[in-house]
Amino acid sequence: MTDKSKQQYDIRFLPDDVTVKGSVGEAILKLALKAGVYVNTTCGGAGTCGSCRIIIKKGQVESAYSSVLSSQEIEQGVRLACQSHVISDATIKVIQNIYPGKKTAPRPDYKPAQPLDEISPLSQKIALKLPVPTLADNRPDLKRLKHGLKSHGYENILLDYEVLKDLPEVSRNKNWEVTATLAMTSPIPTLSRLESGNTAVKNYGCVFDIGTTAVRGRLVDLNDGNILASEMTYNKQRSFGEDIITRITRCRKTGGIEAIQQVTVDTLNELMENMQLSSNTEPEDINAIVIAANTVMVQFLLGINPDFLRMSPYVPAIDNISSIKAGELGINVGNHCRVHIIPIVASYVGGDIVAGVVASEMHKNEQASLYIDIGTNGEVVLGKRDWMVTAACSAGPTFEGGGIKHGMLAVDGAIDDFNLINPCEAPVIRVIGGKKPAGICGSGLINTVSALYTEGILAQNGKFNLEGSCPRIRPGDDGFEYVVVESESTLDGKDIVLTEIDVDNFIRSKAAIYAGCQTLAESVGISMQEIDSIIIAGTFGNHINIENAIRVGLLPDLGREKFHFIGNGSLAGAYKAILSVKTNKKMLEIADAITSIELSENQLFMDNYVASLFLPHTDLSKFPTVAMHTKK
Amino acid sequence: MTDKSKQQYDIRFLPDDVTVKGSVGEAILKLALKAGVYVNTTCGGAGTCGSCRIIIKKGQVESAYSSVLSSQEIEQGVRLACQSHVISDATIKVIQNIYPGKKTAPRPDYKPAQPLDEISPLSQKIALKLPVPTLADNRPDLKRLKHGLKSHGYENILLDYEVLKDLPEVSRNKNWEVTATLAMTSPIPTLSRLESGNTAVKNYGCVFDIGTTAVRGRLVDLNDGNILASEMTYNKQRSFGEDIITRITRCRKTGGIEAIQQVTVDTLNELMENMQLSSNTEPEDINAIVIAANTVMVQFLLGINPDFLRMSPYVPAIDNISSIKAGELGINVGNHCRVHIIPIVASYVGGDIVAGVVASEMHKNEQASLYIDIGTNGEVVLGKRDWMVTAACSAGPTFEGGGIKHGMLAVDGAIDDFNLINPCEAPVIRVIGGKKPAGICGSGLINTVSALYTEGILAQNGKFNLEGSCPRIRPGDDGFEYVVVESESTLDGKDIVLTEIDVDNFIRSKAAIYAGCQTLAESVGISMQEIDSIIIAGTFGNHINIENAIRVGLLPDLGREKFHFIGNGSLAGAYKAILSVKTNKKMLEIADAITSIELSENQLFMDNYVASLFLPHTDLSKFPTVAMHTKK
Repeated sequence: MTDKSKQQYDIRFLPDDVTVKGSVGEAILKLALKAGVYVNTTCGGAGTCGSCRIIIKKGQVESAYSSVLSSQEIEQGVRLACQSHVISDATIKVIQNIYPGKKTAPRPDYKPAQPLDEISPLSQKIALKLPVPTLADNRPDLKRLKHGLKSHGYENILLDYEVLKDLPEVSRNKNWEVTATLAMTSPIPTLSRLESGNTAVKNYGCVFDIGTTAVRGRLVDLNDGNILASEMTYNKQRSFGEDIITRITRCRKTGGIEAIQQVTVDTLNELMENMQLSSNTEPEDINAIVIAANTVMVQFLLGINPDFLRMSPYVPAIDNISSIKAGELGINVGNHCRVHIIPIVASYVGGDIVAGVVASEMHKNEQASLYIDIGTNGEVVLGKRDWMVTAACSAGPTFEGGGIKHGMLAVDGAIDDFNLINPCEAPVIRVIGGKKPAGICGSGLINTVSALYTEGILAQNGKFNLEGSCPRIRPGDDGFEYVVVESESTLDGKDIVLTEIDVDNFIRSKAAIYAGCQTLAESVGISMQEIDSIIIAGTFGNHINIENAIRVGLLPDLGREKFHFIGNGSLAGAYKAILSVKTNKKMLEIADAITSIELSENQLFMDNYVASLFLPHTDLSKFPTVAMHTKK
Repeated sequence: MTDKSKQQYDIRFLPDDVTVKGSVGEAILKLALKAGVYVNTTCGGAGTCGSCRIIIKKGQVESAYSSVLSSQEIEQGVRLACQSHVISDATIKVIQNIYPGKKTAPRPDYKPAQPLDEISPLSQKIALKLPVPTLADNRPDLKRLKHGLKSHGYENILLDYEVLKDLPEVSRNKNWEVTATLAMTSPIPTLSRLESGNTAVKNYGCVFDIGTTAVRGRLVDLNDGNILASEMTYNKQRSFGEDIITRITRCRKTGGIEAIQQVTVDTLNELMENMQLSSNTEPEDINAIVIAANTVMVQFLLGINPDFLRMSPYVPAIDNISSIKAGELGINVGNHCRVHIIPIVASYVGGDIVAGVVASEMHKNEQASLYIDIGTNGEVVLGKRDWMVTAACSAGPTFEGGGIKHGMLAVDGAIDDFNLINPCEAPVIRVIGGKKPAGICGSGLINTVSALYTEGILAQNGKFNLEGSCPRIRPGDDGFEYVVVESESTLDGKDIVLTEIDVDNFIRSKAAIYAGCQTLAESVGISMQEIDSIIIAGTFGNHINIENAIRVGLLPDLGREKFHFIGNGSLAGAYKAILSVKTNKKMLEIADAITSIELSENQLFMDNYVASLFLPHTDLSKFPTVAMHTKK
């Protein structure tokens, strides 16, 4: 090595704003890890997964060619961290994703989404060549435009004053060639924008799934349905509290609701900006936005007092609002862009679930399906073509690591799988990112409890079996605990344990979801066996082990062929809605057709819940395949 | 008299801001005349006409009781100038009207307006008692509201995000009693406002006739159609030029259109404020505004480039825009108030004419009617139930005093009638306000030319007959002239004369209107005789002498029983529109049904025009009753 190769350069990572010294030739990915900056990688630096995208904002790096980057991306300074090396000072923006590896496609076993029918997006651009006025035909500009739109089948449209203000100039700028943008507002479209010339090719939209923790978006070409960019980020509302109830309470302070609305919009704007950057689109060409979100998120976004959502009788403000100008909400796109919000069902069953139901197409099935979105809220929908019932189970944050001593989100360092070869020996664990373990995520927790129960280390009541001679059980600060990983192998040098309190919390969560499903079935008078398919939704749901989830009593013990994964059903539904006026309309029909059952003061649910507070259940006959395999 | 009675006080008149000294007991009306401040009076100070309303802004006056003032007005400091006397310093606002005496009702011989059908105003308030939510009925607030509206027959409505933002609070503030305001926008209503409690009684609207010179307004109780206030003022656009073309040209300067839009809105705001004051209504209770105006005024109000209106092929921007939020235009009322603009027909035939046609109900007649709005533009409409044609005749400003040496508007000091007892002697004239004459207004001009022509002093070609021995004809700076009033009797001590150039200009104006009527009739192939009724519109039209107008060839020589006066047809139509969704819809149908004929490059019109450049016409057979009485 020459002296030059030993020279140290300043590599600054954004958005964390961490600067580290790097030698010439040092891999950016390695440097980021050294700096504690989180960068996605699922292929281990082979340059094939494309997860570790970065943008060179200043300075230079040396990058090997990678076929996963488009020429457009390369032009914009996008590189792969694993294929880039230090050659000078540089400022690098890491394109962040929350759940590494979660960008993979849904498991291929369930394909509910038919190929897109004819595309009829929520914003339609119509290029027109209008007749040039003469003395014999000196109709007003607007009549000329209306006639042109009528010839394309649009007769009844709402007119927007702001759009018509410049009508004379816009009409004449390119010799009476204009492009009209129609926002497909309900019940009749709105002329939302008028441009000179033919701009029909520039017609983009964004769909967002606003979750309590994470917000995901896609930028879509509305003319052909191509997804040009996908992004996710943390919901900035988290600065108001991790859980929804805390956030609602914060709204009672003066200016609270305005503040939480602002951060919600900020979150969308950040995603939008990133997606525009990576797709090379302009803000003013975003013509439609579809939002799928739970009811509280919708009210936060709209700045509507959420207080009545959390108090009995749990009344939402708005079920459906046809469309809002993006500018009214402060979203950084042209004011002509309309925001369509997927209709909600009830206080705790929102448009995210409606979108998922429509995406799953369970509303078309002849047989009953059960749609389960496992998360804090734990929404379940049971139904078929003729009827649907839904409930929110209040599962709690267990599956996102909440209420668990060493619980964590499914990010790098989380134990997401757990197997016991020999009950007395150390378990075989899998850690996301291949790093030293830092804690246990939701899917890891299910797998851990399942294995410990199957091996008889945990009893049906969730207590450790002290009669066995498992050396990994010991008394701890919170009662007995099981040592999952010893200190010498963990990230922070402390033991990772699973306590009896953790198991209790886990059992309460899984019992809430199971009891919710059972109560819905009983409410409509069908048995679990009659359910034809179980659709597991959510990015988390996508990663759970069905066998283990049944074994702990989270999911019903039905034929494994009945279980399907749909991935992020909310985003999938929003995507379908933005590309189809008919599907968007269907959302309202579905929201209206679903009957919400309130569980919070429901005696049947309470009975089912208490009966479910065992592994897998007090009534083992409900879990025949589990009973068969469990060690007593 | 005591010393005190001789004491002088400062009386300040607004808005002219003129201060004069007045003695105790001196009449305010007299003092105003002394100060050169114009105050209406048609009863000559008898306290009966109510025209000389003033508002005491500061200080005090002593006023005799007058039954023409409401107790509400008296409470607000409104007094009659003729019944008030000086007792101290005072600041007095004069409630200005432009055309004294024009507040009188239309001549009673024409009653086209049927009694108002069922009132269905453009803003409807619906008081609702919504069911209080329970666990068994926890539908969203919006569903509850929609259900309430549906029970009143409103199912399909547009929702306004701004209105729904406070839905939870508004619903609960008065225990689920709310009042919804529906703006009757086309094609479906908009929920424009939501208030707690029952506020249905407060539902007001304003109608405006925006004329080139004057703007007139009415404030209407939308629940019962009562007119609570009427006001008029000069159009502030006059600071951009007296005539429309000058104003259009000014718009070409940077910021020109924005500036002219602003003064237009300022004019409306001033009228609105005065009407609110005199009717004791609040800005936020004005829920609808209807505007009747010519096409240029509409584009000025909307801030739309008017340049293409004045250039061939004379293309307007917008024929019809269903409704605009008042706030978008800067009108000082609540943003929920919607502005409805009466649709226009063409560049020079505006919504003012459409409103007049609908007010006259000529569109219902089995026989052909001729609607004539005599003014600068001189719009005429010919038609019946099955068809209507219209044209603008470009009469020029003659009838408003323009292009006439001593021409003036019909305000105090204007000669408005002229009769000759003996052709050689001084004429008998009438002066508005009974003052010394200052000039001749439009109706005075018609009467003067008619009398001079009838007596043979003016020849058919508009030249003075020098062979007669009329001592009042003399050579002047502009050729021969007729002395109407000698200097010793005039306001400024100079002779008031009528020159041959004045007569030429007058003949061109009257010829344009007559030729316009004739051309319309010929275009549709009917003779003038087939016309069943002639409807004279406009506050000016209301004051012309039909016999004289026929004698000079301005109006066709038809049976006098066919002539009717409708007064301000535009305002009458706007008033009907704001009180009836059906009538407002009818405006659009009528605007679409009227065929506009462009006269500016029309050979038939040019021929007719040239043939009309005589008194009354080159073809005397068209004016049989005139031919009979004219001295040769």
